[in-house]
Amino acid sequence: MVFVSRHEHFNAAHKLYNPQWSKERNEEVFGPCANHNWHGHNFELIVTVKGNPDPETGFVVDLKKLSTLIRREIIDQVDHKNLNLDVPFMKGKMASTENLAIEFWKILSVALASITEHGVLHSIKLYETPRNYVEYFG
Amino acid sequence: MVFVSRHEHFNAAHKLYNPQWSKERNEEVFGPCANHNWHGHNFELIVTVKGNPDPETGFVVDLKKLSTLIRREIIDQVDHKNLNLDVPFMKGKMASTENLAIEFWKILSVALASITEHGVLHSIKLYETPRNYVEYFG
Amino acid sequence: MVFVSRHEHFNAAHKLYNPQWSKERNEEVFGPCANHNWHGHNFELIVTVKGNPDPETGFVVDLKKLSTLIRREIIDQVDHKNLNLDVPFMKGKMASTENLAIEFWKILSVALASITEHGVLHSIKLYETPRNYVEYFG
Amino acid sequence: MVFVSRHEHFNAAHKLYNPQWSKERNEEVFGPCANHNWHGHNFELIVTVKGNPDPETGFVVDLKKLSTLIRREIIDQVDHKNLNLDVPFMKGKMASTENLAIEFWKILSVALASITEHGVLHSIKLYETPRNYVEYFG
Amino acid sequence: MVFVSRHEHFNAAHKLYNPQWSKERNEEVFGPCANHNWHGHNFELIVTVKGNPDPETGFVVDLKKLSTLIRREIIDQVDHKNLNLDVPFMKGKMASTENLAIEFWKILSVALASITEHGVLHSIKLYETPRNYVEYFG
Amino acid sequence: MVFVSRHEHFNAAHKLYNPQWSKERNEEVFGPCANHNWHGHNFELIVTVKGNPDPETGFVVDLKKLSTLIRREIIDQVDHKNLNLDVPFMKGKMASTENLAIEFWKILSVALASITEHGVLHSIKLYETPRNYVEYFG
Repeated sequence: MVFVSRHEHFNAAHKLYNPQWSKERNEEVFGPCANHNWHGHNFELIVTVKGNPDPETGFVVDLKKLSTLIRREIIDQVDHKNLNLDVPFMKGKMASTENLAIEFWKILSVALASITEHGVLHSIKLYETPRNYVEYFG
Repeated sequence: MVFVSRHEHFNAAHKLYNPQWSKERNEEVFGPCANHNWHGHNFELIVTVKGNPDPETGFVVDLKKLSTLIRREIIDQVDHKNLNLDVPFMKGKMASTENLAIEFWKILSVALASITEHGVLHSIKLYETPRNYVEYFG
Repeated sequence: MVFVSRHEHFNAAHKLYNPQWSKERNEEVFGPCANHNWHGHNFELIVTVKGNPDPETGFVVDLKKLSTLIRREIIDQVDHKNLNLDVPFMKGKMASTENLAIEFWKILSVALASITEHGVLHSIKLYETPRNYVEYFG
Repeated sequence: MVFVSRHEHFNAAHKLYNPQWSKERNEEVFGPCANHNWHGHNFELIVTVKGNPDPETGFVVDLKKLSTLIRREIIDQVDHKNLNLDVPFMKGKMASTENLAIEFWKILSVALASITEHGVLHSIKLYETPRNYVEYFG
Repeated sequence: MVFVSRHEHFNAAHKLYNPQWSKERNEEVFGPCANHNWHGHNFELIVTVKGNPDPETGFVVDLKKLSTLIRREIIDQVDHKNLNLDVPFMKGKMASTENLAIEFWKILSVALASITEHGVLHSIKLYETPRNYVEYFG
Repeated sequence: MVFVSRHEHFNAAHKLYNPQWSKERNEEVFGPCANHNWHGHNFELIVTVKGNPDPETGFVVDLKKLSTLIRREIIDQVDHKNLNLDVPFMKGKMASTENLAIEFWKILSVALASITEHGVLHSIKLYETPRNYVEYFG
């Protein structure tokens, strides 16, 4: 079994704000991440697929097709967007990097079947900043 | 003369939107950067100071003091903020990376005198994404 | 379960020297790493915590609190220090990156309980140079 | 158990081309990667060894010896070479990054015994570009 | 005046070989870079444009248009190609990074006028490997 | 004229300490950088040479020869060393990054003539940490 990864990029605005809490409680817990007028990040997304290489191509998955799939299913939904306001699959959820990674997993673990018979989704790695990142394995 | 640089980081929301234009004109010129609900970036800021090293310290400028100055004068004004709404020195200006770099220069070229007799500001380098950056030399 | 990581930085002097060996044996085994007058590195430390996100915050662990904890428990003990001479928890141990990672694990796996109910320590990743690094999972 | 990694670099030409297919089928499946006159990459190779540190050295494996081993066994065979034409262990195989990683594993998992009693091969990580990479764990 | 940069990527095969020299002389001067069967690189290209920001947009040059221009004029000519055999503007020239940068300058300094009235080409920076790069200022 | 750069690496111990000052004054000015038992860094060194490419080779300078020269003249003097105690050309000077860059310039600007007729030294760029660096142009 070989693990194959593709790195993509998007940028977006968000804030961390629990609508069931007071403004003060939000500022206490989330600090500047709760800034009313939003802030934003360059997110770096790494999608890893695992499987046995196809003997005819040497590929677990065609990385061009994987890139196209990630762009259509994920990047086009979140790039240059507000993660709290503009992204249907984040509605009603805290716009944390943890939750983003989980939602990306749900989408890609299903969509992947359309481009590979040899590979299944292994992990979503998502950098919010160069110093903060999360990983989700389903 | 030696050139000494310090790298700092902030993240912020912004949009590119000319209020004297129609919505359609803004979307035509700025594309997704004009998204009504904002987007954002991890900005990387590199400040370069030039001068002759002080013979007693070997320093053009004490980089700890330079870091503290940049954080107080710049980072605290823009980090986790909305560049169009929350930053006094960007009011009435397009929130482009070019204009940010020019404003940072104006602030730091004056403030620098408080921490060094040997160095003057040489340049502001500002990454909006890992692939897009600007430099300003005054 | 989500894995959340925080990247911190410190620099330190050390040497690799087994006091039970002769000078010649040390130089033979450790080469320039045994240099009598020390050498040093910029270490990059990545701490990974795993757990289920808190539904109210979306966090496995608050990364600001994790950063503060790592700085207080680890960085303040080793930054701008001599790992052989200045660091109590390395006394009597070879100052190898492997041993550093193990000691950091011991400290952080206990200390982590003070900042999160949802997360436990998963790994310590420690770069000695951009080309050499170790990982420890307990 | 500690995991120790060494990062090496090589560059090479290759193409993706299945000789049992027509030119058209190759171009359809592999696109520009099938370019008749080759293309190439700067490959980044990360070799990870796992084991318990030797109490006398603090090492799982001496990273200088590991670097020398990787250079002799792998880098000297592939650096500044054509992976389809010049590399004996790739003869008859698709020159995909997946297959390279598998062949590197076969070589290093055996060769490693010559430099360490404490460590065994854990993984081969191979970047073809900064955005595409594979990992193999045997 | 502000300097604005855009980073693009391509990969290609090449060799360093002077056809007016003997095989031995080529191998003596160019070493493994003269390998008969080619080798290759992931090239990183940074194009810098200088000028005064347009007051209506805040832009020296629209970086999306600059990216599109670089891709059409340069990347499409060299990506997944053999720099000695497949690239018309390198015919009859040594395929060194120095010469590539000079040719890229000639093309982009003219083509740039089609997308900006405010900016002129300032420099071409071209990484052949992460450790070797050239810059050309016309 | 083309500018050609080579990136090398070394690590070393040092401290910032002016022997003509009291211990208290040193600690006040240099803070943890004055730590009695030293600290250290992974230094990244970028040497830039400028000139016109040789028409027969396409080179301003052969980067393999430049790498060998830098290693012999600089890296072998400073790598795995104590910059205050072990390096003859730093004796009697503050071991600041500024002063290191100036000394490297003095050595390489002379030594370069032994490997190129087409190139002269343009700059020394020296990273002390990923966030602090200096440049010297003679």
